[in-house]
Amino acid sequence: MLEERGFPAGSVRLLASERGGARSLVFRGVSHAIEPVTEGSFASVELALFACANPVSEAWAGIARAAGALVVDNSSAFRYQDEVPLVVPEVNGELLERCPALVANPNCSTIAVVMALAPLARAVGLERVEVATYQSVSGAGSDALEELESGVRFGLEGDPPPRRDGRPAYAFNVVPHIDRFEENGYSREEMKIVWETRKILGLPQLAVTATAVRVPVRVGHAAAVTVSLKQALTADEARALWASVPGIEVVDDPLRERYPTPLEAAGRDAVLIGRVRRDLSQSRGLVFFLASDNLRKGAATNAIQIAERLLGVSASGVRPGRAAEIR
Amino acid sequence: MLEERGFPAGSVRLLASERGGARSLVFRGVSHAIEPVTEGSFASVELALFACANPVSEAWAGIARAAGALVVDNSSAFRYQDEVPLVVPEVNGELLERCPALVANPNCSTIAVVMALAPLARAVGLERVEVATYQSVSGAGSDALEELESGVRFGLEGDPPPRRDGRPAYAFNVVPHIDRFEENGYSREEMKIVWETRKILGLPQLAVTATAVRVPVRVGHAAAVTVSLKQALTADEARALWASVPGIEVVDDPLRERYPTPLEAAGRDAVLIGRVRRDLSQSRGLVFFLASDNLRKGAATNAIQIAERLLGVSASGVRPGRAAEIR
Repeated sequence: MLEERGFPAGSVRLLASERGGARSLVFRGVSHAIEPVTEGSFASVELALFACANPVSEAWAGIARAAGALVVDNSSAFRYQDEVPLVVPEVNGELLERCPALVANPNCSTIAVVMALAPLARAVGLERVEVATYQSVSGAGSDALEELESGVRFGLEGDPPPRRDGRPAYAFNVVPHIDRFEENGYSREEMKIVWETRKILGLPQLAVTATAVRVPVRVGHAAAVTVSLKQALTADEARALWASVPGIEVVDDPLRERYPTPLEAAGRDAVLIGRVRRDLSQSRGLVFFLASDNLRKGAATNAIQIAERLLGVSASGVRPGRAAEIR
Repeated sequence: MLEERGFPAGSVRLLASERGGARSLVFRGVSHAIEPVTEGSFASVELALFACANPVSEAWAGIARAAGALVVDNSSAFRYQDEVPLVVPEVNGELLERCPALVANPNCSTIAVVMALAPLARAVGLERVEVATYQSVSGAGSDALEELESGVRFGLEGDPPPRRDGRPAYAFNVVPHIDRFEENGYSREEMKIVWETRKILGLPQLAVTATAVRVPVRVGHAAAVTVSLKQALTADEARALWASVPGIEVVDDPLRERYPTPLEAAGRDAVLIGRVRRDLSQSRGLVFFLASDNLRKGAATNAIQIAERLLGVSASGVRPGRAAEIR
């Protein structure tokens, strides 16, 4: 994504733990060895992009900051700390103007949902939000994708077996379990949608509920969303609002089979919104469906947009000569 | 299902159109030829089970009734006529006591949803219901299942192609389009959930909204459901209510990976309910997830339960010697 967006990195250093994975990656046609991360790894690094599990971010983000690097972290380790901005640039990018040393990149489903909610919140205000997700298996990592593929191969001949850890199969199934469970009966993925939607929109009291469900899709998260608005909007008014926002594409002509699907969203940066309709069950409600690429806008694209804005560079790369660090 | 439930049919006649499909079916170890339906087909038939498209039911149900047969119809042709009872026996089976000549069998997703809603409605009353479905491809018929299978085989090697009719692939995708679209932006499948939930529960003003989505699953429909109640219920109270109802099984121990999934529901008659929790976003709300076999409780099982009650027979078959007609 850094290469695709023309990110103006002067030099790049790739860091990882010792175990597993590739030993090198090609960036702009040059093979870069992946080095084991050490205390000295962040010397003279301007920007560090963290894409790792919470304990790794917790262990190393402070070291990177102490060495002078700006940190954009894709884990959930710092997202709920009041002093850490949680940013979707199109929604609350102004938080980057005071140049925070650490910025958290939000949850993959939440990014798409707040992209859709923010224009409604600004135009008429939100009262309540309800989300049911259809999340792809790539969100659970590459091992999970392999389990989906092997489960599908088995499942073509008979019932797909449970996963290696004994949990229900991904293949030919839907599983209402993402991340661990909290004491209130919600999964942590569901609570991330609640907490992060409130924080990113700056609406700490917003009523939000979510059900997070894994579906046998490779890439692309979708969601059915219902909102209660402070003032009524027609479907046409909502579509017009969304169509004017960068990063959103309205795909809504169901009679011509045009509506958001994960297959259509995969490989693209836009959040697709469609199936927009007035909610029959309440006076100021709106119902819609969205899909976005969880690996792009749900993760890498959003993180790099944050980095671009932190460093004052545009996507076309107007400030060359700066160094960027990739993890 | 007639055989499995010991339905006390004296004799059975299998009727179909001339085109396609099997030429015979085995019932209780005996091969029965499938005959083309004619005006005379329903002579001396006591019960006719219709499992066909609306125009076929519209053309032949009246002929069957005129010949003296009781009709249980699985199409949606008669569901919305005031004088036709729409029945889920555990919910509004008392409508069968006045022995109507025609009974409509409800939509597959709606049956599972009203099974879950009815005990809540009776105990504390409902204010509003919101449903997002995860519906299996068998609900679209056997051709659709073949498209899922071939799409999955293609999809293991690259992107699954669109369906033969140009619509988005089922394989490795989710598609927010079931049945045709209405002028209000809802699909007809979504409106069936609205209309039929109100009719079966006897609550014509109930606020209901739904999003109906096809997922790459063979058998088993699931749904994320949120209800606003007239009086608050805890998750434990709701689980206790459901556990006391025949036809419902509470599967709700997420820390031990116990929650409803379509793979677990497939092949069973029970509606599985789990992931029960107080709704964080409203004071008297409850959120839960359900799964049921759309071919059994969502179709055949429910139709046969209706027939059993119409004829005054129990599932174990206490009134032998009556004739049943299967289409």
